[in-house]
Amino acid sequence: MPSATKPRAVRGGIDLGGTKIEAAIVDARNNVLGQARRPTPTEGGPEDVVAQMIGAVREAAGAAHLDTHELIGIGVGSPGVIDPVSGSVSTARNLPGWEGHYPMAAALSKELKAPVYVGNDVQVATDAEFKQGAGKPYKSVLGVFWGTGVGGGLVLNGRDWIGRGGAGEIGHVVVKVGGARCPCGRRGCMEAYAGRAAMEARARKRAKKGTKTDLFKIMEQRGRTRLTSAVWEQALHRGDKLAMQLIDDAVTALGAGVASAVNLLDVEAVIIGGGLGVRLGEPFVERIGSAMGPHLFHDAEPPKMHLAALGDLGGALGAALLVPRRRTPS
Amino acid sequence: MPSATKPRAVRGGIDLGGTKIEAAIVDARNNVLGQARRPTPTEGGPEDVVAQMIGAVREAAGAAHLDTHELIGIGVGSPGVIDPVSGSVSTARNLPGWEGHYPMAAALSKELKAPVYVGNDVQVATDAEFKQGAGKPYKSVLGVFWGTGVGGGLVLNGRDWIGRGGAGEIGHVVVKVGGARCPCGRRGCMEAYAGRAAMEARARKRAKKGTKTDLFKIMEQRGRTRLTSAVWEQALHRGDKLAMQLIDDAVTALGAGVASAVNLLDVEAVIIGGGLGVRLGEPFVERIGSAMGPHLFHDAEPPKMHLAALGDLGGALGAALLVPRRRTPS
Repeated sequence: MPSATKPRAVRGGIDLGGTKIEAAIVDARNNVLGQARRPTPTEGGPEDVVAQMIGAVREAAGAAHLDTHELIGIGVGSPGVIDPVSGSVSTARNLPGWEGHYPMAAALSKELKAPVYVGNDVQVATDAEFKQGAGKPYKSVLGVFWGTGVGGGLVLNGRDWIGRGGAGEIGHVVVKVGGARCPCGRRGCMEAYAGRAAMEARARKRAKKGTKTDLFKIMEQRGRTRLTSAVWEQALHRGDKLAMQLIDDAVTALGAGVASAVNLLDVEAVIIGGGLGVRLGEPFVERIGSAMGPHLFHDAEPPKMHLAALGDLGGALGAALLVPRRRTPS
Repeated sequence: MPSATKPRAVRGGIDLGGTKIEAAIVDARNNVLGQARRPTPTEGGPEDVVAQMIGAVREAAGAAHLDTHELIGIGVGSPGVIDPVSGSVSTARNLPGWEGHYPMAAALSKELKAPVYVGNDVQVATDAEFKQGAGKPYKSVLGVFWGTGVGGGLVLNGRDWIGRGGAGEIGHVVVKVGGARCPCGRRGCMEAYAGRAAMEARARKRAKKGTKTDLFKIMEQRGRTRLTSAVWEQALHRGDKLAMQLIDDAVTALGAGVASAVNLLDVEAVIIGGGLGVRLGEPFVERIGSAMGPHLFHDAEPPKMHLAALGDLGGALGAALLVPRRRTPS
């Protein structure tokens, strides 16, 4: 007889982001039993990052009154290029000192005494929205994570689509041949207009050239060194012209890029998440939907547009979904 | 014991194009037993188109020494919006007098005395390449049919991906926000630069404004009223500057649009077909691959690029694949 609530059905999930590490402990029904958050180290190397991940999982497990060895497994949503079989991670450009392949699963597993499964951060966040969040009513969804960059995740007919391992790069869909330089080095990518890093670079350039803006004043008032999502939000509220214009350009690019993906895939629903997406919320989901309109080939049947429902915890919840369910012995 | 070569395992396939109707009769192993081609009527209505389709299938069946009622089924690859359950077709803009839904499967079935299955023309051509042509070594392919328009077909993990029925519109992936007007009415679509109809419209405009070109001279010499693929090919061979420039623009747009699709889906292979694609051949498959390069996110692992291997018959062979195989009674 299945007994889904036995302690051994409890799993861990870690969302490894460029700025923070989010850990969650969930039961078989994906109820959150404990959670913890730590900053991602900005110096050092993989070992330092992994040490913070271990700390976060131990803290979250402690909150759930468990030891990590009691978990049936721990999933990790990681940036970079992932080898799902070995659990190693390479080319994680947003993480400090991450050169070559690092055996992340092995390093975590050794300390935490539980099997570790590594997947793509954006894909696991899409999975979480698909299974537990805004995507629940659908069989095919496109997740668009609008933050520092713009990441994409795909669920097609109920299953992840990762291609040869590198699918979902919606941020690098071309929206303007010969257009702006993207942080990735290419030209005309959607992320070159819509990614927060690209937007900040443009804002700095424009401010330097004399365009008036409160963006950097707000940044300093908030004690930040970067234009965070909250800084953009506040600047928009104040009616800052440069902020409004750059956000308009971002929405235009997102409209074109997401519409291109929909023309190609005809998914039932698009879910907008990520730091900026979640911060700016529903009104911007609508604005992106409107910007898609003129480019949608089947414009009488646009996909449903949703805001990510799981917020900041989606990545960790999705990571926990990487852990295979143990079969109950009959 | 299965007996795959019994006459009853023989199927028909019809490729309904804007300029011609191609019919093929194939055995259980997809060997071609007979084929026929007729021009697509340019006047009249659905009944006239269907009458030509019936004629083509009867002729092809005759060449195979069969009557159409002996076929276990007939597949049709059709443009327009298809209801695969009822077999009706609507919004087929390239076909004459095609307003509203027309019950194509029922009309054909009544006359040909065999069950009829209707699918999307580009998707069935992609299927044929996947199962019998250039896509055989792969599990995921993107078919790009470069002709009057630019159509796309997807096979992901061995299965067609049609979304809610309207997927594959790679011609309407946006390559330039605010760019050229597409024959579909939208702006900046890949087809606005790469579709033969759009290229012809641009050539006519430029010629009117005084740009020198042999394109229309060649067209007249060949007794044509349209810039066919053969006309473009000949103009390129002659070194016609306008033709070269418009083809360059088309290749640039194809590079960006197909790279966008690959960034999103990370398919193993891209197959280039269609009237222009097949006519211009391998050198242009390479040129499109080169044009994709600067936009590919995983540029160290580009997809394999192939020319469609089945040529003009691919659509009809793919249509025949729509017919379900009858199970041999055990």
